[in-house]
Amino acid sequence: MSNLLWQKPGVQVEADIQRFLAGDDVVLDREFFLHDIEASRAHAEGLQAIGILSVEELEGLTRELGTLADDFRSGRFVLDERFEDGHSAIESRLTERLGDAGRRIHTGRSRNDQVLVATRLWLRERLDRLQAVCRGIADVALARAQSEQMIPLPGYTHLQRAVVSSCGMWWSAWAEGFIDNAMRAGDTRAWVDANPLGSAAGYGVNLPLDREHTTHALGFGRMQVSATYAQLSRGKFELAAIDALGSALLDLRRLAWDLSLFTSAEFGFVALASQYTTGSSIMPNKRNPDVIELMRASYASVAAARTEIEQLLSLPSGYHRDLQFSKGALVHAFGRGLAALELLPDLLRRLEWRPEAMSAALEPSMYATDLAVDLARSGVPFRDAYRQAADPQRWQAGDPAGSLAARVSAGAGANLQLELLQRRLAALQPAAASGSAEG
Amino acid sequence: MSNLLWQKPGVQVEADIQRFLAGDDVVLDREFFLHDIEASRAHAEGLQAIGILSVEELEGLTRELGTLADDFRSGRFVLDERFEDGHSAIESRLTERLGDAGRRIHTGRSRNDQVLVATRLWLRERLDRLQAVCRGIADVALARAQSEQMIPLPGYTHLQRAVVSSCGMWWSAWAEGFIDNAMRAGDTRAWVDANPLGSAAGYGVNLPLDREHTTHALGFGRMQVSATYAQLSRGKFELAAIDALGSALLDLRRLAWDLSLFTSAEFGFVALASQYTTGSSIMPNKRNPDVIELMRASYASVAAARTEIEQLLSLPSGYHRDLQFSKGALVHAFGRGLAALELLPDLLRRLEWRPEAMSAALEPSMYATDLAVDLARSGVPFRDAYRQAADPQRWQAGDPAGSLAARVSAGAGANLQLELLQRRLAALQPAAASGSAEG
Amino acid sequence: MSNLLWQKPGVQVEADIQRFLAGDDVVLDREFFLHDIEASRAHAEGLQAIGILSVEELEGLTRELGTLADDFRSGRFVLDERFEDGHSAIESRLTERLGDAGRRIHTGRSRNDQVLVATRLWLRERLDRLQAVCRGIADVALARAQSEQMIPLPGYTHLQRAVVSSCGMWWSAWAEGFIDNAMRAGDTRAWVDANPLGSAAGYGVNLPLDREHTTHALGFGRMQVSATYAQLSRGKFELAAIDALGSALLDLRRLAWDLSLFTSAEFGFVALASQYTTGSSIMPNKRNPDVIELMRASYASVAAARTEIEQLLSLPSGYHRDLQFSKGALVHAFGRGLAALELLPDLLRRLEWRPEAMSAALEPSMYATDLAVDLARSGVPFRDAYRQAADPQRWQAGDPAGSLAARVSAGAGANLQLELLQRRLAALQPAAASGSAEG
Amino acid sequence: MSNLLWQKPGVQVEADIQRFLAGDDVVLDREFFLHDIEASRAHAEGLQAIGILSVEELEGLTRELGTLADDFRSGRFVLDERFEDGHSAIESRLTERLGDAGRRIHTGRSRNDQVLVATRLWLRERLDRLQAVCRGIADVALARAQSEQMIPLPGYTHLQRAVVSSCGMWWSAWAEGFIDNAMRAGDTRAWVDANPLGSAAGYGVNLPLDREHTTHALGFGRMQVSATYAQLSRGKFELAAIDALGSALLDLRRLAWDLSLFTSAEFGFVALASQYTTGSSIMPNKRNPDVIELMRASYASVAAARTEIEQLLSLPSGYHRDLQFSKGALVHAFGRGLAALELLPDLLRRLEWRPEAMSAALEPSMYATDLAVDLARSGVPFRDAYRQAADPQRWQAGDPAGSLAARVSAGAGANLQLELLQRRLAALQPAAASGSAEG
Repeated sequence: MSNLLWQKPGVQVEADIQRFLAGDDVVLDREFFLHDIEASRAHAEGLQAIGILSVEELEGLTRELGTLADDFRSGRFVLDERFEDGHSAIESRLTERLGDAGRRIHTGRSRNDQVLVATRLWLRERLDRLQAVCRGIADVALARAQSEQMIPLPGYTHLQRAVVSSCGMWWSAWAEGFIDNAMRAGDTRAWVDANPLGSAAGYGVNLPLDREHTTHALGFGRMQVSATYAQLSRGKFELAAIDALGSALLDLRRLAWDLSLFTSAEFGFVALASQYTTGSSIMPNKRNPDVIELMRASYASVAAARTEIEQLLSLPSGYHRDLQFSKGALVHAFGRGLAALELLPDLLRRLEWRPEAMSAALEPSMYATDLAVDLARSGVPFRDAYRQAADPQRWQAGDPAGSLAARVSAGAGANLQLELLQRRLAALQPAAASGSAEG
Repeated sequence: MSNLLWQKPGVQVEADIQRFLAGDDVVLDREFFLHDIEASRAHAEGLQAIGILSVEELEGLTRELGTLADDFRSGRFVLDERFEDGHSAIESRLTERLGDAGRRIHTGRSRNDQVLVATRLWLRERLDRLQAVCRGIADVALARAQSEQMIPLPGYTHLQRAVVSSCGMWWSAWAEGFIDNAMRAGDTRAWVDANPLGSAAGYGVNLPLDREHTTHALGFGRMQVSATYAQLSRGKFELAAIDALGSALLDLRRLAWDLSLFTSAEFGFVALASQYTTGSSIMPNKRNPDVIELMRASYASVAAARTEIEQLLSLPSGYHRDLQFSKGALVHAFGRGLAALELLPDLLRRLEWRPEAMSAALEPSMYATDLAVDLARSGVPFRDAYRQAADPQRWQAGDPAGSLAARVSAGAGANLQLELLQRRLAALQPAAASGSAEG
Repeated sequence: MSNLLWQKPGVQVEADIQRFLAGDDVVLDREFFLHDIEASRAHAEGLQAIGILSVEELEGLTRELGTLADDFRSGRFVLDERFEDGHSAIESRLTERLGDAGRRIHTGRSRNDQVLVATRLWLRERLDRLQAVCRGIADVALARAQSEQMIPLPGYTHLQRAVVSSCGMWWSAWAEGFIDNAMRAGDTRAWVDANPLGSAAGYGVNLPLDREHTTHALGFGRMQVSATYAQLSRGKFELAAIDALGSALLDLRRLAWDLSLFTSAEFGFVALASQYTTGSSIMPNKRNPDVIELMRASYASVAAARTEIEQLLSLPSGYHRDLQFSKGALVHAFGRGLAALELLPDLLRRLEWRPEAMSAALEPSMYATDLAVDLARSGVPFRDAYRQAADPQRWQAGDPAGSLAARVSAGAGANLQLELLQRRLAALQPAAASGSAEG
Repeated sequence: MSNLLWQKPGVQVEADIQRFLAGDDVVLDREFFLHDIEASRAHAEGLQAIGILSVEELEGLTRELGTLADDFRSGRFVLDERFEDGHSAIESRLTERLGDAGRRIHTGRSRNDQVLVATRLWLRERLDRLQAVCRGIADVALARAQSEQMIPLPGYTHLQRAVVSSCGMWWSAWAEGFIDNAMRAGDTRAWVDANPLGSAAGYGVNLPLDREHTTHALGFGRMQVSATYAQLSRGKFELAAIDALGSALLDLRRLAWDLSLFTSAEFGFVALASQYTTGSSIMPNKRNPDVIELMRASYASVAAARTEIEQLLSLPSGYHRDLQFSKGALVHAFGRGLAALELLPDLLRRLEWRPEAMSAALEPSMYATDLAVDLARSGVPFRDAYRQAADPQRWQAGDPAGSLAARVSAGAGANLQLELLQRRLAALQPAAASGSAEG
């Protein structure tokens, strides 16, 4: 590491301690680097507005920040162990290119609010992607629910055959689930959309920083007012974002479980495109649904990240270095989680049902509930109707189409209310557009 | 247990298995019993509307449900191990009192949607309480921030003395934190405010149930459309509520940490009313801040409940008995969490600062940042100003009032923007009023 | 609460605060009450040995402690909210019956070491039960492995049919798993078998307490030497016990998953005795394997308890009231965990295979690996053999008996090495006998 | 990726799916690569013994495996994304260099048991390092306990001043704690020390593999007998190792908390060597104990890894791809955990007490317990003595040396029993020597 900004003369930093302190921080900062640059630009504008920077200095900083961003994107600039972290890398570069203007960029700012604002921008972007992919999944599910509304599928509870269900019911369940997940991503996006820049190390600073400017310039929905709270929100906001992500991944875990069963030979309800399967190193006969299994497993990574951050947050107020570990956890959660979700729309689109196997699994007992309800409708008290319908002698092969057609309550076989779900989906503002700064 | 509704003749249920199946379910159902009654009434109304119940039967059911609720509240009816669960208890009572009308109440309903709707109503109520207590905490904090704006308090990072802070900054941090928590409680309340009743066992039912009626009658903001998704939301919605609760408890954990330190002899910044302390069984000299410690500890119970539920949710779609364990976890989280939060407003109101100890802890080094920024304002590039201000010879006893007065950025010592926070707090709709059914 | 031992005059304890402090502590103490009595007797003996109690006082205390234990067991004495906790209840009773001798019992002891020692004795007992049930499960599994060694069962990876397996291989897997779990229970039992009594509030006491006496009298394997460490081990030892429990429950979760699949209509490999199934409130046709599902779910409760305790343990050394919450978590984990495990031996004993369904699921592709290995044995490099055997044209209906008979490596179909596993099981000392105090 | 061993012709693997499947697996395999090579050598020896490989082929394989290990260590061979994973890399290299001998190495082996055995060897090594560092920490603590036995230190409960303690009591607490942790590392090492090689994909193989040979050759304490159990132990054994690691990290978290408080200005009991502190980017006056804070935080990473793995393990028996994610979690836990622990002995060795501040914090009330016990010794029943000693008028400045000298019970101030702890430490077999194969 070439450049420890805070280093005092005479202090020998031993290599192993230094390595422990650095961890993989600078590598993780690649995730946040462009956001840090973006926020640095807004900060510089604010400094110029209050006379800390001249117009020329601001121009120089703006230009060099732009160049650095380009160089980073193109790979000409690599953020690596030469730097303590991304923040130092930016300041070093600006100082190297611009001299005093670079030495002025950190006026009124701490690494504390710098990492907060960069993370916040990153979170916002990730939550937008989360919302977008949830909408995409819901789109596919609604379309298939529409076209496969009346294809019979056995319905299970306790993994035991229960009643006749349909592909339409199965798809619309996931549609509504992912609409809810998209709604939550949007709510969370709005909740975290608060600007911490200008809070310095948690106690503000003796300058008239223009925090409204940076709030607007960075497109935040509101200012995070209290300088001390800005620090307290480290980890708290990350957890909220992880919770929204986890909500989607939890549904994915259950969806993947369905597919894992449905693609087994015993169920045999679903065929997956071969792209989603892999082979075995020893068993020549195997095609395994590994993609589905890793999708299912991805929730574990989100849960792990949650644990990691919440375990850190047993601390008094104020910044503590413990919080550094929240960064890797966050990247792990969204890396794994979004990768899994973003493969899903295509996988669902390509999924093929095996209607014969599905029909073969519909057995006479699965019409017993229909029978009990029919009896109840004809006047037999339900509890008595239930007992009558429990007699296996009364069970007989039924007509799945008829069973579905009679399911007329909202949300059931013959009345999926897809238009209502479609309207809800359409009513979700794209998250990115929802932010509007407080008047 | 007197009455297993689903029991078939000839099956011997062995006592230990039965005990394992029952667990503490019926005792937990006390929490949900009134909500189950409320939802049963709405369901009965719906059944009458479609001709399953006569007007007289509905009247009888409505009356007896009301009586049962009264008896339960007054203790005349005790929900205990005589019953398999709360659901059975209601049906048994209605059948005992009304005969066939009681035997008809379960028409078109499963225990699956019955437990979903009761839990949903309970969740809504708990989230309202959560929002209310967060608002109450923010109220106290804003009031004290206002009146103690300029009382100096040492500001820490890494538990090391950093810069001068103030009671105003400390209080306004918690104010903003709990405003955010109240906002999240409200968002979550709206998110879970969806009616699952009428989804039966996850596949709907061959009746034209009037789900719009029950949605309106129970005051839900929207219908949970898909019958299959209703089942998939079991646990998922509970987790979202626990997440919102956890957000507040996480802030409480950090607040309690501050108070734990501040009430130590070494800091000595805060005196607690004696009600909040207890003694030792062996050490006659002790007064321990046990209330604060249990407040801090309460997050652990919320986290545990989260773990318990999320561990359950690795399942295919459809109901599985595993989900029964989500009930106890939910009750544990909200029981512990709300109890801790609801003691907080009073505790904060009564908390007394010890300004002498606070002032004594302000040492010369804590003005070094002010000095560096002053130098920067006068034209010295900040990185150079920082190096100059790092020289201990330049540190001298400062004036805390002056240091705070110069902190003029939004959210810092002299500019807490309490009115803005007050406006945000006022803008939060009381959660209970926010639900309005989809048009 | 009648009697707060540490209460000072003039302090008004408000009801809600008091309720928060008390929680369900006294109810939980029912679990530990007999152990607390047992340890109190040993402590009293020690006090007599150093002259704090007279011989008559010790006799009185011993007698009354015995009576109290009897009364508690018989229900004549109920530990309830009249008392602050179990510790106070014991001292109150002794003082009520014996006067000064009761007032002397707490000499040189704190509630801190009192709860530690009672919990430690309880843990030891629970770990013994854990080991015993794991041995019992292994016993059943070994017996069935022996008698069903060559019954063919499809072997799966990724829930896809892989190769021919056998009931023998399935049973011996669980046998070895639960032998390992029993071993771990024993290791953990020995690890936690350290006497904390005599450490007072974490700093010892100005008395020559005879800690070797109490160590021997209570049958501990060693003394927990450091008074300060005794406090640090609160929670740490509980977690270790929960980890050992969790190891068994994790295997149970996977076993229950197998049974959940095997009892589905699609697999149809296993029939459960009807005692283990329940019905549905709406679907007359259902018999659901609820016992299996709750067994599977029980790991979640163990995981939750782990989370609850580990979240508490972010604290400086010394006792903190936060630790009180570890008690409920511990009881929750072992209550749920042991209940689930202790139903397992019978369930396994009664489980019936459906060999026809199992055979029907053996398809030609499942012999492809045998073929590849046969080719390899005949000289074809395995990687080439694999490619040849991957050709579906070469797959044909095989002989499961032959396939198993050729699996001669240790631990495979024809060579289960059950005697070796049997020897390992026998070599496990019953945990209760393994403790022997350090010489 | 150049070489997918199981790839069938005609299957187009799309890049994003492939990336999702690959994840960071091959990079993680660098951790396990040398162990995989070691196990491959033992496997090859076994294959030669049963005639699958000729003596010449075995020689070639042994030589090339050695060269590959050397090349990997020296950096001449880099394991990177060119390969699907480490296993494929080894087979590719052997085939490239040796032709058919390379194509034969995988005979009778699956990637399933290959990854199990490599992980097992890695775990064993990590647990040895864990035990070694725990012993090292205990060594330092015992040495300092010896030399600082009677230096007074305030003793706290609830962070409130309680009684006089000593540096000796503080150090011996950590000594005993880390002796216990070392013991547990050893127990766990023995528990996981079971050879899975030869179990193939979980169902054995139609070859007479010499599993006793590989068990001895790889120095395992026992054979993991059941082929099916070998698969079931994936994750289970990893969790046990993480539990043992977590036990040490949990103590470290509490130790770091002590140091975090003790290095605050308010306590001021401890000075850290400057190597362990860092500065601030904005506050020129700061020296922050970041190393201590990251040590404290490291438990979070261990807990996260535990969560990640246990969340995966809700699966039926047999291998599932979900388990792949256990690898990264394991590396994360031990990477963070051992790094933190291994810095501790030096940090503790260099830690300097500030005896003046420690003495200044000893106040008269802290002798009240001594007084109560003295009264009890003189005949006053303890409960009465307690009340008398609770009178602040009776508290007076005491003599810490005298208070400590009177603490004569085992494990207290004047009787630390360091020799007993020393004997326990010495009695711990170095883990590496404890493995001895079953006769």
